[in-house]
Amino acid sequence: MSTARAAVLVGPNNVETWEVNVPEPAPAGVLVRVVVGGVCGSDAHIVTGDAGVMPFPIVLGHEGVGRIEKLGVDITTDYAGVPVEVGDVVYWAPIALCHRCYSCTILDNTPCENSRFFENADLPNWGSYADFAWLPPGMAFFRVPDHVEPEALAALGCALPTALRGFEQAGGLRYNQSVVVQGAGPVGLSAVLVASLSGAGEIIVIDGSEKRLETARSLGATATVSLAESSAEQRLNDIYALTGPSGPDVVVEAAGFLGAFPEGIDLVGLHGRYIVLGLWGAMGEIPVSPRLLTTKNVQITGATFPKPKHYYGTVQLVARCQDTVPLSSLVTHRFSIADAGAALEAIRTGTVIKAVIDPSL
Amino acid sequence: MSTARAAVLVGPNNVETWEVNVPEPAPAGVLVRVVVGGVCGSDAHIVTGDAGVMPFPIVLGHEGVGRIEKLGVDITTDYAGVPVEVGDVVYWAPIALCHRCYSCTILDNTPCENSRFFENADLPNWGSYADFAWLPPGMAFFRVPDHVEPEALAALGCALPTALRGFEQAGGLRYNQSVVVQGAGPVGLSAVLVASLSGAGEIIVIDGSEKRLETARSLGATATVSLAESSAEQRLNDIYALTGPSGPDVVVEAAGFLGAFPEGIDLVGLHGRYIVLGLWGAMGEIPVSPRLLTTKNVQITGATFPKPKHYYGTVQLVARCQDTVPLSSLVTHRFSIADAGAALEAIRTGTVIKAVIDPSL
Amino acid sequence: MSTARAAVLVGPNNVETWEVNVPEPAPAGVLVRVVVGGVCGSDAHIVTGDAGVMPFPIVLGHEGVGRIEKLGVDITTDYAGVPVEVGDVVYWAPIALCHRCYSCTILDNTPCENSRFFENADLPNWGSYADFAWLPPGMAFFRVPDHVEPEALAALGCALPTALRGFEQAGGLRYNQSVVVQGAGPVGLSAVLVASLSGAGEIIVIDGSEKRLETARSLGATATVSLAESSAEQRLNDIYALTGPSGPDVVVEAAGFLGAFPEGIDLVGLHGRYIVLGLWGAMGEIPVSPRLLTTKNVQITGATFPKPKHYYGTVQLVARCQDTVPLSSLVTHRFSIADAGAALEAIRTGTVIKAVIDPSL
Amino acid sequence: MSTARAAVLVGPNNVETWEVNVPEPAPAGVLVRVVVGGVCGSDAHIVTGDAGVMPFPIVLGHEGVGRIEKLGVDITTDYAGVPVEVGDVVYWAPIALCHRCYSCTILDNTPCENSRFFENADLPNWGSYADFAWLPPGMAFFRVPDHVEPEALAALGCALPTALRGFEQAGGLRYNQSVVVQGAGPVGLSAVLVASLSGAGEIIVIDGSEKRLETARSLGATATVSLAESSAEQRLNDIYALTGPSGPDVVVEAAGFLGAFPEGIDLVGLHGRYIVLGLWGAMGEIPVSPRLLTTKNVQITGATFPKPKHYYGTVQLVARCQDTVPLSSLVTHRFSIADAGAALEAIRTGTVIKAVIDPSL
Repeated sequence: MSTARAAVLVGPNNVETWEVNVPEPAPAGVLVRVVVGGVCGSDAHIVTGDAGVMPFPIVLGHEGVGRIEKLGVDITTDYAGVPVEVGDVVYWAPIALCHRCYSCTILDNTPCENSRFFENADLPNWGSYADFAWLPPGMAFFRVPDHVEPEALAALGCALPTALRGFEQAGGLRYNQSVVVQGAGPVGLSAVLVASLSGAGEIIVIDGSEKRLETARSLGATATVSLAESSAEQRLNDIYALTGPSGPDVVVEAAGFLGAFPEGIDLVGLHGRYIVLGLWGAMGEIPVSPRLLTTKNVQITGATFPKPKHYYGTVQLVARCQDTVPLSSLVTHRFSIADAGAALEAIRTGTVIKAVIDPSL
Repeated sequence: MSTARAAVLVGPNNVETWEVNVPEPAPAGVLVRVVVGGVCGSDAHIVTGDAGVMPFPIVLGHEGVGRIEKLGVDITTDYAGVPVEVGDVVYWAPIALCHRCYSCTILDNTPCENSRFFENADLPNWGSYADFAWLPPGMAFFRVPDHVEPEALAALGCALPTALRGFEQAGGLRYNQSVVVQGAGPVGLSAVLVASLSGAGEIIVIDGSEKRLETARSLGATATVSLAESSAEQRLNDIYALTGPSGPDVVVEAAGFLGAFPEGIDLVGLHGRYIVLGLWGAMGEIPVSPRLLTTKNVQITGATFPKPKHYYGTVQLVARCQDTVPLSSLVTHRFSIADAGAALEAIRTGTVIKAVIDPSL
Repeated sequence: MSTARAAVLVGPNNVETWEVNVPEPAPAGVLVRVVVGGVCGSDAHIVTGDAGVMPFPIVLGHEGVGRIEKLGVDITTDYAGVPVEVGDVVYWAPIALCHRCYSCTILDNTPCENSRFFENADLPNWGSYADFAWLPPGMAFFRVPDHVEPEALAALGCALPTALRGFEQAGGLRYNQSVVVQGAGPVGLSAVLVASLSGAGEIIVIDGSEKRLETARSLGATATVSLAESSAEQRLNDIYALTGPSGPDVVVEAAGFLGAFPEGIDLVGLHGRYIVLGLWGAMGEIPVSPRLLTTKNVQITGATFPKPKHYYGTVQLVARCQDTVPLSSLVTHRFSIADAGAALEAIRTGTVIKAVIDPSL
Repeated sequence: MSTARAAVLVGPNNVETWEVNVPEPAPAGVLVRVVVGGVCGSDAHIVTGDAGVMPFPIVLGHEGVGRIEKLGVDITTDYAGVPVEVGDVVYWAPIALCHRCYSCTILDNTPCENSRFFENADLPNWGSYADFAWLPPGMAFFRVPDHVEPEALAALGCALPTALRGFEQAGGLRYNQSVVVQGAGPVGLSAVLVASLSGAGEIIVIDGSEKRLETARSLGATATVSLAESSAEQRLNDIYALTGPSGPDVVVEAAGFLGAFPEGIDLVGLHGRYIVLGLWGAMGEIPVSPRLLTTKNVQITGATFPKPKHYYGTVQLVARCQDTVPLSSLVTHRFSIADAGAALEAIRTGTVIKAVIDPSL
């Protein structure tokens, strides 16, 4: 049995490069050679321990694009029924669904109650900061068309399926509806991109970084509001000046910051919808005025944990827009497996738009 | 021109009985002889001034069942196209829609941005604490079938259309879904009744009054939880024991108390819905944990200001269930127009389930 | 290895009783001792060959209630996450989903494109006209509460999950909506039951058999229309007299007869919905007037192949209503495995409401 | 009182130019000077008598863009709450809603059961083949932003609100869904435009005229199929080759030809939707295979008679896309009021894409 490299988190703030065995695929699984492993903001929280204690040692990385190295004996197609063979590029949903729990079977929704995020680094493993990812049975993967650039697919990482799921969960977006996006990190930028491609009208983005706001504009934002230069009241006034007196049809929370929540409730217009995507990682409480929900007839939709179909949708979306939207250029930093620690540090310091692990380095 | 009585709020906490002119109906309106005027909890807030400064003097009462006294020359049907004539009993929606604002025409939703709640007591007036209500053009009224008891229709007042609207706005209720109702005042009782008639499974009601919980059981609650004897944690445990580990499908806020909001977010189950109806009158802020919305994929729907169709639906619902559900008996107190002040006092002190103004007294 | 009996279709119109091996459960499957095997109308079509050529020899029966005989080593819960052990009664969805095709993963809908209806009679087999059913991995089964009568669950067979799916696919049913059901076989009776429990208003059933119409009334139909004594025009007039001039909110096709389709389009009211469940087996074409769809703003929803959750919903529904609705009494005929041929003949001649295979006979 | 011109249909195929009185606006209405009156295909049917007997004499024209000449005393805003004054350009929905019938109030849907399409030519009149249109109370009109070209708004006429309504009624369109449009007249072209702006994926148009297919491509069609050169089977094969084996997500019927209906049912993909817009005018019956609706889980939505909000949406859509989509150039022919007969003849002979009445000629 041959070996290959993997970036392993052995304890809080302790990433090592291990030489691990390259496993055979399970009969209903595949073995993938990683082309790009995305570095996600939540990886940084996992490394510091902010996201809770992990089953150390674990292979890092839940965002991946790779090339099929070996197919399990039972596998002839991807999870959308498309034939696959060795050498094909695939994109995968990093959580295998059990199809046996109440959420999976009865509620038809994610998260699966038996979600397993990580596997021990000594066992066959789907972490993407590695030369190989072993996708177990039930872990949905999708054939990526030949013309799609892996960097374009990796550029927004799991934030793009998250945005697709959020809009779907909240009932979709109609042509010309106005959208406000709180935060221009990957989730916010993904919301901007999806809104823009879906025909939204005004797409107004709030963020503290001019560089990120500029990126938002490159992906379809029609206006941006700088946090640095405004009070909440000024932001509300500016946004209502753009949307008209009934206010935004949709507000998307992608800030991951508790204070965004009451501001979002203030911002959303009459009969509007507020889609909460980013607060997944924001522990704690914040005061809100619930009365506004009734006087404005507001709907709030929390959403996270995209379904496999949203990863499929991501492949389709990138395939369609990579030529007109500067997705690949969002990947500003590229690290080897051995430099995974530096990649995570770059995320923490906010010096990158998107960093990826490139096993070929 | 003849005159008749009306209970007029001339200033905060100052209700007088006036003798007012009986007006002719507008060409596209009707004049109704009031049979029952419902006394709503919000009337008490209006009288004390808690609900803001009113355009005094005003005729009180937004809940009414009456008999057509005179039809405007253009009127041959009610607002559902049903023929009407003098002497027919009707039930009305107390806010005329303008059909000219953004909410009415473009968003197809209430509240109308030009809502007028009250009219000066010296002018033709639709307040229901009076012998006559003058329904202006655009104020939807519906023919009440002959066999319907006016008290049954008045028993839950505007709370019943509010509950119908809430469930509809939130996407409806499916057979066997579990419902938790916070609060057993008229809104909570209405939610129980609608849930029960719609085939809900467990219907669990939380309230501090054993008498109100008993009423909830008479309207279809399958279990009740006393606020007096429980901590929030106990309530959650008790409720999850009844609904199973995925928790309630739907929670309805009908408590009108700020503290109910964070508890409701805690209570709602995986992929559940939280319908906020009662916080309309609860000024102020309360801390919540927005993260729960994402980890549980929760949808929150604020709803108030029923549409005319929910008043129509109320008539249909009462017509169907008045023989099997003890609706009329909810009307525990009956006051003359001259005793409107006493009626409001009875509401404030919580000694009644439902009080009504009966102009025949 | 022990053996047991199974009713095997070896060719068109040729049912034999075989002694087959009793297999071990698969690691992710279960072995079930059949308590009741439902005889479905489509079984009769399968036997005659009307439903196409089958992969003979096959074990008949896709409706089953049974008791867990042996659990696969990986199985500790049913498909709703409820713990199970040997001896528990279960109900199952007879088609295992692949979770790997476009319909399963991307469209989140049934039928699965890799549906396997039958397995060769020489292999481990889930056909329910047998002493044992071997449920393969992926075939959803649900724990039946102890108090539920197996006959009550079997009484409407796969028609009840079909009706649940149909209403859900079409957007649900709201309190007091009027429903017309074409046909009072198991699908029509199931639609009546679901509509009644969901709070429908008028529930009007059309059928040619007075006995079946009587059964429909026992399950909640508020009015019935005999096909024998009416023209299509009379039926339309009678139905509109009951629903009012806007016509039925919902029409459910459960007749399985081509002529029902144009009549259903005629019957459905303004802005109404037409749910087509029964035409699955009705080959051929029939003229319709498509213009009516636009002038009445009608929505037609075709639906069949319930999801696992609709089988789960069936268990919940029966558990709730078996004491108030005479479900068990719908099982009018009971046959041994050896008499499967007679059971199918009884179905074909229409002498039964519901026939079941009882392996204990 | 001054007079002005109007094209009056005095009987079948008999259009005269009348000098009619210019009326004062009603207190809740407006008087509009017509800038462009659109000539719709249905006008041609009205003129020949194919659409039934009309209340002759009538002023023709239900599509109009105009300039406010005089405001009723009660009017300060349009029907979206936007302030208006004399001289503003407006676009209107040609059917005033009664807000008093079952469809308007209870079903919240159009058509209004009291729709009045035409008024006698001797009375104040909203027909748009005239110098002035008198918009009665309840006839929704919307302020057109100053930069919008009246021709761009008139180019697709009432077909554009019809397409907006159709997609909304059927549940909206999600990014990348594949759409097939049957017919490339104004309704089909509108469906193409809306689908394209809403982010649809493949947009495949079927028509017999290469010129119309070319126009479809200019509005966003990604592929076109010529009726002239293909059998139904070839079309199905060609379309499935483009959409993949699961077939189109959405098919839009905009052909107005009975034969399109069974072909649309064949074309629509697994779990797909079929939106029927054009068959409004196609009398008669056509054989279909209803079984396909169940085996494919298809939803069919008939839709016509847009709501006022779809006219508002049309103004917004044109305002946003007139610079990037060649809308104005669709207006290929322009006629004076006196030449209305020639305009109608041009429509009948199919020599125009869009013809308009221009009162300034």
